[in-house]
Amino acid sequence: MSIFASFGESLFDAAKKANVALDAPCAGNGTCGKCRVKLLEGSVTGEPTRHIPAEEFAQGYRLACASAAASDVVVQIPAQAGAYRSRIKVSGKGSVREGKIFENLRKELRAMGLEKDSGLEFINIEIESPEGGNGMADRERLLRKISLEGSINFSLHALRKLPQALRSGGGSLMVLLRREPGTKTGITIMDLFPANISPAPVIAGMAIDIGTTTVSALLVDLLTGEILTAGSAGNGQIRYGADVISRIIESGRPGGLERLRLAATEECVAPLIRDMSKAAGLLPESIYRVTAAANTTMTHLFMGVNPEYLRLEPYVPAFFESGPLRSADLNLGVHPDAEVLVAPAIGSYVGGDITAGVFASMLFKKETLSLFIDLGTNGELALGNSEFLMSCACSAGPAFEGGDISCGMRATDGAIEACSVDADTMEPALTIIGAADQKPAGLCGSGLIDLIGELFRCGIIDARGKFIKEGKRIRRDQWGGASYVAAFAEDSANGREIALSEADIDNFIRAKGAIFSAIRTMLAVLDLGPEAIDDVYVAGGIGGGINMSQAIRIGMFPNLPAQKYHYIGNSSLHGAYAMLTARNAGAMIAKIGRGMTYLELSTHPGYMDEFVAACFLPHTNGDLFAGVENGQ
Amino acid sequence: MSIFASFGESLFDAAKKANVALDAPCAGNGTCGKCRVKLLEGSVTGEPTRHIPAEEFAQGYRLACASAAASDVVVQIPAQAGAYRSRIKVSGKGSVREGKIFENLRKELRAMGLEKDSGLEFINIEIESPEGGNGMADRERLLRKISLEGSINFSLHALRKLPQALRSGGGSLMVLLRREPGTKTGITIMDLFPANISPAPVIAGMAIDIGTTTVSALLVDLLTGEILTAGSAGNGQIRYGADVISRIIESGRPGGLERLRLAATEECVAPLIRDMSKAAGLLPESIYRVTAAANTTMTHLFMGVNPEYLRLEPYVPAFFESGPLRSADLNLGVHPDAEVLVAPAIGSYVGGDITAGVFASMLFKKETLSLFIDLGTNGELALGNSEFLMSCACSAGPAFEGGDISCGMRATDGAIEACSVDADTMEPALTIIGAADQKPAGLCGSGLIDLIGELFRCGIIDARGKFIKEGKRIRRDQWGGASYVAAFAEDSANGREIALSEADIDNFIRAKGAIFSAIRTMLAVLDLGPEAIDDVYVAGGIGGGINMSQAIRIGMFPNLPAQKYHYIGNSSLHGAYAMLTARNAGAMIAKIGRGMTYLELSTHPGYMDEFVAACFLPHTNGDLFAGVENGQ
Repeated sequence: MSIFASFGESLFDAAKKANVALDAPCAGNGTCGKCRVKLLEGSVTGEPTRHIPAEEFAQGYRLACASAAASDVVVQIPAQAGAYRSRIKVSGKGSVREGKIFENLRKELRAMGLEKDSGLEFINIEIESPEGGNGMADRERLLRKISLEGSINFSLHALRKLPQALRSGGGSLMVLLRREPGTKTGITIMDLFPANISPAPVIAGMAIDIGTTTVSALLVDLLTGEILTAGSAGNGQIRYGADVISRIIESGRPGGLERLRLAATEECVAPLIRDMSKAAGLLPESIYRVTAAANTTMTHLFMGVNPEYLRLEPYVPAFFESGPLRSADLNLGVHPDAEVLVAPAIGSYVGGDITAGVFASMLFKKETLSLFIDLGTNGELALGNSEFLMSCACSAGPAFEGGDISCGMRATDGAIEACSVDADTMEPALTIIGAADQKPAGLCGSGLIDLIGELFRCGIIDARGKFIKEGKRIRRDQWGGASYVAAFAEDSANGREIALSEADIDNFIRAKGAIFSAIRTMLAVLDLGPEAIDDVYVAGGIGGGINMSQAIRIGMFPNLPAQKYHYIGNSSLHGAYAMLTARNAGAMIAKIGRGMTYLELSTHPGYMDEFVAACFLPHTNGDLFAGVENGQ
Repeated sequence: MSIFASFGESLFDAAKKANVALDAPCAGNGTCGKCRVKLLEGSVTGEPTRHIPAEEFAQGYRLACASAAASDVVVQIPAQAGAYRSRIKVSGKGSVREGKIFENLRKELRAMGLEKDSGLEFINIEIESPEGGNGMADRERLLRKISLEGSINFSLHALRKLPQALRSGGGSLMVLLRREPGTKTGITIMDLFPANISPAPVIAGMAIDIGTTTVSALLVDLLTGEILTAGSAGNGQIRYGADVISRIIESGRPGGLERLRLAATEECVAPLIRDMSKAAGLLPESIYRVTAAANTTMTHLFMGVNPEYLRLEPYVPAFFESGPLRSADLNLGVHPDAEVLVAPAIGSYVGGDITAGVFASMLFKKETLSLFIDLGTNGELALGNSEFLMSCACSAGPAFEGGDISCGMRATDGAIEACSVDADTMEPALTIIGAADQKPAGLCGSGLIDLIGELFRCGIIDARGKFIKEGKRIRRDQWGGASYVAAFAEDSANGREIALSEADIDNFIRAKGAIFSAIRTMLAVLDLGPEAIDDVYVAGGIGGGINMSQAIRIGMFPNLPAQKYHYIGNSSLHGAYAMLTARNAGAMIAKIGRGMTYLELSTHPGYMDEFVAACFLPHTNGDLFAGVENGQ
């Protein structure tokens, strides 16, 4: 395709205007190195940088954000290592580990009497023939046979199907009803089928976690609670920046709010729903109920509500709760009258992903003290028990999801999700997501924690994250920066070296420092030490679980016995699942939200000192990690 | 533009596939003569016909439906005399005559306690500042101040406006609420505005009559009941045929139902709403309530419901009543949560236009016997009083709206709406809709009645509608058919002669015969003579009223004293207006519908004989019109 660029305008900006999606976690500021293009014809401004070394520069590689066209140019957009684009991944029933977490969750829900109550049910009815019905219309003959109290709404979707369904079923219909919440008598006729239809129709629902970086979803059979398919996709908004602040800024530009809304819905959630439905052999219109959990900014953008005031003092959202929405208003492509329920937020930086996640962790039911940590694009934490709940958010950035890391990627095929390093040879052993012969394409969050932990344990990097050894795996560039090569070009999935640089490690250390200092500050406010914590629930879709001892080694989590740590996967998605299958779960989540106090870290005295102290491996105060093996 | 045609395919069919609208009341059967094109290059099949005489043929005129391309061709689509296209006409407050009818209607509604109750109202509230609200979100601070009982829905449209409205109003808001029908406590927050907004927001509603040929609408201020603008447009479905049967057949073709739905909504109602709103200085999203009345087929197509079974035995609609619909589902472009109410039908051929029209005529309130006649594309009738109501429909065809008449047109600018003919000179005196210097473009229904009545009175045509005089105004063509030239080419708006042919008169006589024989049959069923009728209410948007004595002269209406006849305009639209401004009117119209018996004429013994007898001027039984002056 051809696009126009103004004089001096970067290729990145010109592409964005033409709606061509380039990866840009840094929103086009030249710092992330993801928006690589290959120049095929013509010339552009710019010179080699650390993201495009001289060798690659000579081959024609450029950063789109740092290049302006100096003539008509032809560029190629290469398949990227850091898979930030909206690649959709659909799997049968979720990964094995999540499967176990799920079984636990469903057991808990059952114990709380919260299972399989979506408000949707089939009834079978026999309808008189038109001749027998004395000339009455189809709808009126149907309503006469539904012996239900109260007001009945007829979904237009169902009415449109009525004449044909009635005649192909010979007057026998399966009618899908929704009993309206909050009313004893309100009923909506959602859908209808000839009674003899085969295969029998499925009443499906979709639970969605709308992450800043990744959107994850579960397609669920609402009558059995079974997961039909699990899936994920990159959030289509990523081309407007990796963090919520970049998105909020973009939303304020002309047309930006609608652009971001559609990038999340039509470009991401709707295709994900289509693919997941197809994998389950269903039409998207078989989805009658949708729940979503997301941080406050994502929730605003998903609904098309201006998020501007989230980042302006006094940081007040447009809404905490939204009430039930209608799917047709949100461009989801499911049944138009499907109810869409969004998990309630409690503040600008503690959103529905946290209220839903805290619910899924079940910590609100325990008398003992639990810490909940959600490692998303930001870090959010909650501390409490059945008596009280306190939450806070810290600007961890997107490192745990592969953002701000040159070789970072989402936890999809090709991601290194775990690794160990041999202290003598410095050779790595990698665990890669995907088929047996999958080559590595980058590092996801869990792989990053492992690799940095291992480099530190082996004394390859020091407490500041600087390389202090040399070897075949260590590269030093002309700017003095060093990297560790986790996979050489010839061993990687896309022919590019996978290397973790000091700049990457630096970004990661700031992310883990933000988490650790947030925990310390919350404990200090409550005048507690870390030993008061009985259980730590670590959530986040950052890979196949977290190696907790590595996370402790690098000073990301407090030095507590391993058995206190529980990886609970994508708890935001699990909370959305609970809201989907059990109508009362939504009310409980709202109640959790209303009862939670919020600690604003950015203005809290002492937080900045804690943060600076935590920006070392493991910490400036080594006593906090006494007994943990490391390279020092 | 270029379009492709298959070998042997008519230009009309090729154009339809390419979505180029050509007029075709006959749906491309070569009988109406409306789909004229001018051949500029290339050659097509075909030869001169009565629609394209040799002279015009030589100039390159062709009927698109009767011409297949014999080479690549270039054709011009001329501006048509018979203005069937979707031209939109918007006027300030309706015509003067309708204004009077309207005043009467509003007086009746007031007397029945049915005025200005749309369920919509403004409340003013002051909302705490974010700082004062203890960090609560905008929505939650607003809800805390609305001291209302019951469940509150927040329209997403309103929520999206909340952050900005709140801040530009300094915390003072005007909130538009809708009290939900059928519940004492259900409330929807529809919209909100800063309290200081200027000009003050208008709560508007739209009443629509969706005719087979013409769509008419009123934009109404719901707080005052005042009409802001009136407007009309050709029904965009016209290119699929003039009558409901052609539309039903088209709806059964692949994609046809959605094509017809969008032709009525996105191509016709939505642009009409935009133009009417603009003329009133409003945004379409200021329309919070919509009512529509239409025949049963139009109602099905407007809602996208398969109308196939309307024309298959036993002729049963998919629905009589539809319950409230949501505008966003119908592509109307107004407030997405606006309630759309459709007047209920009572049968396949007696639709909401009749139940709404009978309501507007108020005949259901009278003890004396009234006859209601709606001259739309079909003719529908009702006979009754406060005790009973009987209705029937007859296939009058579209002649009263200018269809099936070579020089026919809708009652818009250029239409001859009345005329007289000098018995000696045979010269006509024409009354033309439009500005003072408007030249005639064709004949609308009221003009047709006048002209045929005058030709008959002056003895220019005989009882069979054949020309029996000669003169300057009488043309005879090579096929032996004769016409009366109402306007010569040089005097017409588009340089084409306006001539009424024997074929046109024949079509018209069948239309009027259908009406008259329906009246006779209904009276016969009740064992009554015409003298039992106390009042006749004639409805239909067929021009500026009807000259009743002409209609009696040609045997269209029974020979009753002139004062018994009342022209009540577009009663379907007036019924929709009542439903729009008064919520209880909808329930009353539904009740009228449920209580009305339906007489099926097509299978009624005797109807066909009555019809044949009525297909003369005025009738084979001259005694029925004793004392009426005519040329016999």
